[in-house]
Amino acid sequence: MKKALVIGVGPLNGLGGQLCRKIAKNNFEVFVAGRTKLSLDNVVNTILNDGNKATPLEVDATNENQIKNMIKEIGPGLDFAIYNVGNNTPGKIVEMDANYFRESWESGCFGGFLFAKEVIKTFISEKTAGTLIFTGASASLRGKSNFGAFNSAKGALRNLAQALAKEYAEYSIHVSHVIVDGGLAGERIKKRISNFDERVKEGKLINIENVTDAYMFLYNQSKHAWTFELDVRTSQENW
Amino acid sequence: MKKALVIGVGPLNGLGGQLCRKIAKNNFEVFVAGRTKLSLDNVVNTILNDGNKATPLEVDATNENQIKNMIKEIGPGLDFAIYNVGNNTPGKIVEMDANYFRESWESGCFGGFLFAKEVIKTFISEKTAGTLIFTGASASLRGKSNFGAFNSAKGALRNLAQALAKEYAEYSIHVSHVIVDGGLAGERIKKRISNFDERVKEGKLINIENVTDAYMFLYNQSKHAWTFELDVRTSQENW
Amino acid sequence: MKKALVIGVGPLNGLGGQLCRKIAKNNFEVFVAGRTKLSLDNVVNTILNDGNKATPLEVDATNENQIKNMIKEIGPGLDFAIYNVGNNTPGKIVEMDANYFRESWESGCFGGFLFAKEVIKTFISEKTAGTLIFTGASASLRGKSNFGAFNSAKGALRNLAQALAKEYAEYSIHVSHVIVDGGLAGERIKKRISNFDERVKEGKLINIENVTDAYMFLYNQSKHAWTFELDVRTSQENW
Amino acid sequence: MKKALVIGVGPLNGLGGQLCRKIAKNNFEVFVAGRTKLSLDNVVNTILNDGNKATPLEVDATNENQIKNMIKEIGPGLDFAIYNVGNNTPGKIVEMDANYFRESWESGCFGGFLFAKEVIKTFISEKTAGTLIFTGASASLRGKSNFGAFNSAKGALRNLAQALAKEYAEYSIHVSHVIVDGGLAGERIKKRISNFDERVKEGKLINIENVTDAYMFLYNQSKHAWTFELDVRTSQENW
Repeated sequence: MKKALVIGVGPLNGLGGQLCRKIAKNNFEVFVAGRTKLSLDNVVNTILNDGNKATPLEVDATNENQIKNMIKEIGPGLDFAIYNVGNNTPGKIVEMDANYFRESWESGCFGGFLFAKEVIKTFISEKTAGTLIFTGASASLRGKSNFGAFNSAKGALRNLAQALAKEYAEYSIHVSHVIVDGGLAGERIKKRISNFDERVKEGKLINIENVTDAYMFLYNQSKHAWTFELDVRTSQENW
Repeated sequence: MKKALVIGVGPLNGLGGQLCRKIAKNNFEVFVAGRTKLSLDNVVNTILNDGNKATPLEVDATNENQIKNMIKEIGPGLDFAIYNVGNNTPGKIVEMDANYFRESWESGCFGGFLFAKEVIKTFISEKTAGTLIFTGASASLRGKSNFGAFNSAKGALRNLAQALAKEYAEYSIHVSHVIVDGGLAGERIKKRISNFDERVKEGKLINIENVTDAYMFLYNQSKHAWTFELDVRTSQENW
Repeated sequence: MKKALVIGVGPLNGLGGQLCRKIAKNNFEVFVAGRTKLSLDNVVNTILNDGNKATPLEVDATNENQIKNMIKEIGPGLDFAIYNVGNNTPGKIVEMDANYFRESWESGCFGGFLFAKEVIKTFISEKTAGTLIFTGASASLRGKSNFGAFNSAKGALRNLAQALAKEYAEYSIHVSHVIVDGGLAGERIKKRISNFDERVKEGKLINIENVTDAYMFLYNQSKHAWTFELDVRTSQENW
Repeated sequence: MKKALVIGVGPLNGLGGQLCRKIAKNNFEVFVAGRTKLSLDNVVNTILNDGNKATPLEVDATNENQIKNMIKEIGPGLDFAIYNVGNNTPGKIVEMDANYFRESWESGCFGGFLFAKEVIKTFISEKTAGTLIFTGASASLRGKSNFGAFNSAKGALRNLAQALAKEYAEYSIHVSHVIVDGGLAGERIKKRISNFDERVKEGKLINIENVTDAYMFLYNQSKHAWTFELDVRTSQENW
């Protein structure tokens, strides 16, 4: 049984949680990595109840030693890895604390570097034609007022992902970047807006299950025709 | 049984031919449209031999009346349409005949306009949440020496496709653009290069079967998380 | 005295007219090309009254013979050429006449091909390290609902311009593309909106004089550090 | 006399040094900021010998307190600021030390955040319609094998710059990003390659004097038609 690793897992009905569940259903042993033990356990238990395999890994994505230990714990057989860390970090630059800007980059990009480095080293040493996917956003492609920190971190991650895609293609390692353009119909937004159900019904929030299908599609591509980047949005998105 | 239409079909082992075959296998009645009767018949017969349904439609994609008649012949039930017309048109601008430049645009973009107009009118009048996909190229995104005509036509098609994607999203019509980055392992290149088999073996040409999977993936997306654009290339492509 | 040619000249206080006047002030003999004799004469007379040199050339930019004749009439010494043709062409694709779409491309892109071909041939045959600038728009970079025809034509022109920039750099010919992002404070918009003066005062329309400075800046660049593309917009533009 | 500040100044014949000299010639008191006292003094002395005004400021661009103190030392009247910090940082990701990746971002982007924050705060508090320019590279726009760290840092800086441009346009503050595409004919490359003079003669390296003209052009633009981004390259660049 092949192993998959998703880092940046929060609530079960968030993108990270649903990626884990979908991948587990596709016959992977899934390693569920994130900062909050309770959330990880919830995702793992759901997967186990589905009759599939999952293991929680409590980890800070921006800590190199923790990333290295995580990879060791997983052991041989890793074939699919997803970097799904990094929340939106709104705010005007002139009012922004330097640490806030730095932390936006640390979770949004630096952790992606640490993760990619260890994952790809593992793929190469095990001669695995593995897949590594990064979660991006429309913010990855441009800067916008009030979102300078997030735009910057996401732009940094995207260029890194593209460099990785080119750098490790010769090892048959597939690196992809998914542009999630809009709000996801998951826990995070549910907590933030009052009319969540209405917005879901109107089709204004991205269906997470459908997004996880896109990640599986990317995983299943052959090196004879693979995709670096695709975008996902609802039909209602104004772009 | 839903109907699909692919325009720009040449040899069986080209992208158009293989799109038809793949879509037919996915339980569509496929309308196989192109300029050369012999090629269309070959594709159609192969699909019939597979036990699936197909009809040839001899048509010039740049002729408005022929496009309109084609849509009439197909009749109700169209759900999936692909514009796959437009070959590469190399040449330096200062040495280029004006008609050559014009024809590059006519097949590369104007036919796409005619096609999209009739297909989308049909989707709207039949209240079909249909899918319309355009075949693009790396040329869609930039200009390059010796390829001004092709770059220009493909850039024109891409901006048109993006405008369509936004304009008809409210009708739940999904418009996509596939960036094919590199040579396809099909008849066209086979005829042009001497070491075709070697290049296929080395993985330097894009596997057409895999590309058709990407088109099916786009077709199967829901409007709650759909993709406007994705790229496909081999692991060996220098990009 | 070096010669300059601007095609796509309408009213004096439009971009074409002001480009002519600014270039003439910079010691060029300016050839003022456009479709409407009256407008051309107005621009030419103003330049002559400034004490500078100008000649009107009545020409349809989409007609190859007229373009060729125009170049002949100018004679030797052409050093600077600007393609400024192509108005916005709004409209939904499903309601659009095929000729409207075609004409949008013919003025927006095909004329640019005809113009570039003859201008660059002249530059090469006269061993002139000339400059050729195309007027673009934000529409050059993407598609948007209701602007499919214009987006498509402008995207086509941009990719052509980029191909030309690369193709003729070896002849020290400088090809540039100016992205005008927003409405210009000129005759065209003045006629269309009722609160023109108010909008100018509020700084919401692009100052044409300032745009012409950007064209002169591009002209004056050396081949050791030249620019393919720059954007211009007001501080009030929402982008 | 207006004040200008350039951070990221090294040798006199580098981009930072020549920006200082050019700006000083345009009647600014120039503050010359960088890490190496000797280099700063050399630039300052040259400017003083030209009969213009300059002051050295020894500063680490990635240190918030030093940036804040630098702004205090300059005092009122700042009108023009340039962030020119961040060298290329080649290397494969799997072999790269985490600190190397981090430092690439710290000088390439984080320092730009610190600098922009203090500069813009000063502009706003003094009601100055100032100009802030960032030095970018072709690396700002994409990822490439062996340059993941640099691509990532430069992509981060570009998105930040674009967010700033939009965020502070309402204060009439002009934020720009210059894409330097290729090697500069300056000290850094002179030290690295053996055939420097030959390459300069062949026109293969970007003329720094010409680049400084582009920065002055951006400074001189009005808010009624200003530029966010322009690229500069030689006619010999392969792009």
